[in-house]
Amino acid sequence: MKLITLQFDHSSSEPLYIQLYNYLKNEVTTGAIAAGEKLPSLRKLSKDLGISITTTELAYSQLLVEGYVTSRPQSGYYVAQVAGAAPLMEFPEKNKMEFEKYTFEESPYRYDLSCFDFGKWKKCASRILNDYSHMLLFESDPQGEAALRFEISKYVYKSRGVIASPDQIVIGAGTQQLTGHLCRIMRKMNIGHVATEDPGYVPVQNIFRDHGFSITKVPVEADGIKIEKLPANIPTAVYVSPSNQFPTGSIMPVGKRYRLLEWAKENNSFILEDDYDSELRYFGKPVPALQGLDRDSRVVYLGSFSSTLFPAVKISYMVLPKEMTPIFHAIKSDYTQTCSKTEQLTLALFMEEGFYYTNIRKLRNLYAQKLQVALAAFEKYGDGIAHPANKTNSGINIILKVRTKKAPEVLCEEARQIGLNVLPLASLTDQDTAGLIFYYNQIPLDQIDSSIKELLALWAA
Amino acid sequence: MKLITLQFDHSSSEPLYIQLYNYLKNEVTTGAIAAGEKLPSLRKLSKDLGISITTTELAYSQLLVEGYVTSRPQSGYYVAQVAGAAPLMEFPEKNKMEFEKYTFEESPYRYDLSCFDFGKWKKCASRILNDYSHMLLFESDPQGEAALRFEISKYVYKSRGVIASPDQIVIGAGTQQLTGHLCRIMRKMNIGHVATEDPGYVPVQNIFRDHGFSITKVPVEADGIKIEKLPANIPTAVYVSPSNQFPTGSIMPVGKRYRLLEWAKENNSFILEDDYDSELRYFGKPVPALQGLDRDSRVVYLGSFSSTLFPAVKISYMVLPKEMTPIFHAIKSDYTQTCSKTEQLTLALFMEEGFYYTNIRKLRNLYAQKLQVALAAFEKYGDGIAHPANKTNSGINIILKVRTKKAPEVLCEEARQIGLNVLPLASLTDQDTAGLIFYYNQIPLDQIDSSIKELLALWAA
Repeated sequence: MKLITLQFDHSSSEPLYIQLYNYLKNEVTTGAIAAGEKLPSLRKLSKDLGISITTTELAYSQLLVEGYVTSRPQSGYYVAQVAGAAPLMEFPEKNKMEFEKYTFEESPYRYDLSCFDFGKWKKCASRILNDYSHMLLFESDPQGEAALRFEISKYVYKSRGVIASPDQIVIGAGTQQLTGHLCRIMRKMNIGHVATEDPGYVPVQNIFRDHGFSITKVPVEADGIKIEKLPANIPTAVYVSPSNQFPTGSIMPVGKRYRLLEWAKENNSFILEDDYDSELRYFGKPVPALQGLDRDSRVVYLGSFSSTLFPAVKISYMVLPKEMTPIFHAIKSDYTQTCSKTEQLTLALFMEEGFYYTNIRKLRNLYAQKLQVALAAFEKYGDGIAHPANKTNSGINIILKVRTKKAPEVLCEEARQIGLNVLPLASLTDQDTAGLIFYYNQIPLDQIDSSIKELLALWAA
Repeated sequence: MKLITLQFDHSSSEPLYIQLYNYLKNEVTTGAIAAGEKLPSLRKLSKDLGISITTTELAYSQLLVEGYVTSRPQSGYYVAQVAGAAPLMEFPEKNKMEFEKYTFEESPYRYDLSCFDFGKWKKCASRILNDYSHMLLFESDPQGEAALRFEISKYVYKSRGVIASPDQIVIGAGTQQLTGHLCRIMRKMNIGHVATEDPGYVPVQNIFRDHGFSITKVPVEADGIKIEKLPANIPTAVYVSPSNQFPTGSIMPVGKRYRLLEWAKENNSFILEDDYDSELRYFGKPVPALQGLDRDSRVVYLGSFSSTLFPAVKISYMVLPKEMTPIFHAIKSDYTQTCSKTEQLTLALFMEEGFYYTNIRKLRNLYAQKLQVALAAFEKYGDGIAHPANKTNSGINIILKVRTKKAPEVLCEEARQIGLNVLPLASLTDQDTAGLIFYYNQIPLDQIDSSIKELLALWAA
């Protein structure tokens, strides 16, 4: 048995038993005392070190609780085998200040906490962690949690006329994830061709390209994608955002939606309907989703919760048409679910309790007001420098046309300096443009007018 | 102005003002009263309907709060423009029972809630939702939250000797996600070839295949992948799990690790080191990670939190070598973060507070005991039917060789009937095998012996 030689530091504020505990822990983790070795008895060690039995016992108990030693009845204390994996046992020092530094550094923008009721969300999250924590001990279904798919099924029907059983719904962490699944499904169906809107939303095109799909760009008109320019006689998936085309903002009227469905049917093709922001329409009647008009199972419907909950929640979903559903079921076990299971279940409760519906109504009111104030401010102060590129009546941002010699990146950086979130349009579209995306949704209502005034003065300087 | 004709149901338990509110809401949402139209004055409507002014005022106030009408001072109430998007306004009926049904249906397995301290996790999550909720109003960095990358940087150094600045760390929802990023990075570097272990972990191979990489399978020996069989003179990324090869359980000794690093350097190739389960080693000293031995920036290190937190958390990370880091930084804005930002921040706090370290120590103790009881039970009861396929001393499962005429799927279903989680090995490896993966980690310690006895009796029947 190794001799235990420890010099106590009697001037230290650390109790003797902690000093003994630290010493022994170090001996064990460094291997100085080997696994399986017996420790001296309480009586012997206390005598050797000149301390009370209680002190030694406290140190041993702590080591026992933490698993560094085991105890055998009528025999004594032994160094545990688990101690092998040593370095991990060290606690890193607390670094609260660094956590604060990292977290606050990342919020350079103004924000409006009234956009979301985190209290209600927390209530639902707590219920999941308290009452359903056993579910968190298993991975999420690659298709998404059944409880959430059920809520989505009810919701898309009520809000957008989309007809979907929970079985047809697939949940993923963002549209890019779901597009990845679509690529895999379409490959199995021998579809290798995708048509996208031009100009259109580029990030999603990258996914198709990564998966080796060929891409045809099809021009967008005032009423959406130009149907006559779509590929014919070759199975194609056309990616469209008919309810709020990005970045033109064009809306496809019902008549044209039927013509697009006709095209899909005639050419054995599919429509990938991105219905982002569909909940955030502020004026006029919404046009029903293509999916609900479809009688031939030609539409994949894509939706997301990012704009109507809070942006850090990445929960998107798609509704597969009948032909694709069994193909996904056959491959799904090869892929893991990317969406947090806790957040999926929290959202299911949040919807089931009606909080989601209350929140959309609240957001719609608040954002409609913010949009009107922002548009008015650009009209008041924007003369000659910046004005909205199209008639926006939905969403969370305004697309700006800017006339200045400054590069878009400079304009965005100037916006950031005063806490405004502005992105170069070129980063999201395939347009060669000096356009900018101005996010008004997170600016508190009473700051919108003055911030836009300030911004335009900065840009003009 | 449209005439308001409402027959109150005086026998209903609903107050009159709610009946009026519902009636008006319906008129507004169906468009029967158009946006912008003025509602009758309080006095007039009350008189027309024969109710008190207070009742009418309550109904109007409710409509005002919910945004169906607006009020103009000195003028009156007008139907709001936001009302257009009608169907959404309907609350779905509560369906608590269905939520319960969906959530409980999915937990057919035994579970052990003592595996994770959900209370501590909830405490951290609450702090994020209370004190840092402004951060949740912005999307997560595609690379992962800085605060968590900082914690991981400290952690991997302490636990595995991995040297990584937060800048080199990329966070994603699972190894498959990160492998997707790796594919994109390697494409930019003109690496189109991957070598994988045979037998090996198949789900990750699917990702490489989806991205069009060619794959060479390299046999695994008792000490890991056969280095002489690795491709030479062609830039290759070899995917290995040197600390606990799946499914053989082989461990690559330090000497061979250096030889593998040498191979990478000589052939301008890279090593993708999957260090899953590295924290859960129960006996013997851990072998240091390849990444920490690497002097030529040839190793991508992949780790995950799924086994050491709870399986529903999908947070994985990788450490990029120097050459790959700027390439990822250049492409990252094209891809969205899949990992929940709330969970990333919660984990950063959980680590910073030391809870993560406490939990690993607890798990290591608990699982080591569970493993010993499970192995003893298979020795006692498994004779002729099932025995462990290799010497397991880490992880959360045991790989079983089974001798019976029943198909693996039948054996798994029989296990499921008594709440045990068993998977066919063939679903995760490219081996033609009747082997099974038996998860012991979630079975309460005091049920392990009896459940295995019960299981083997079922299988033998």
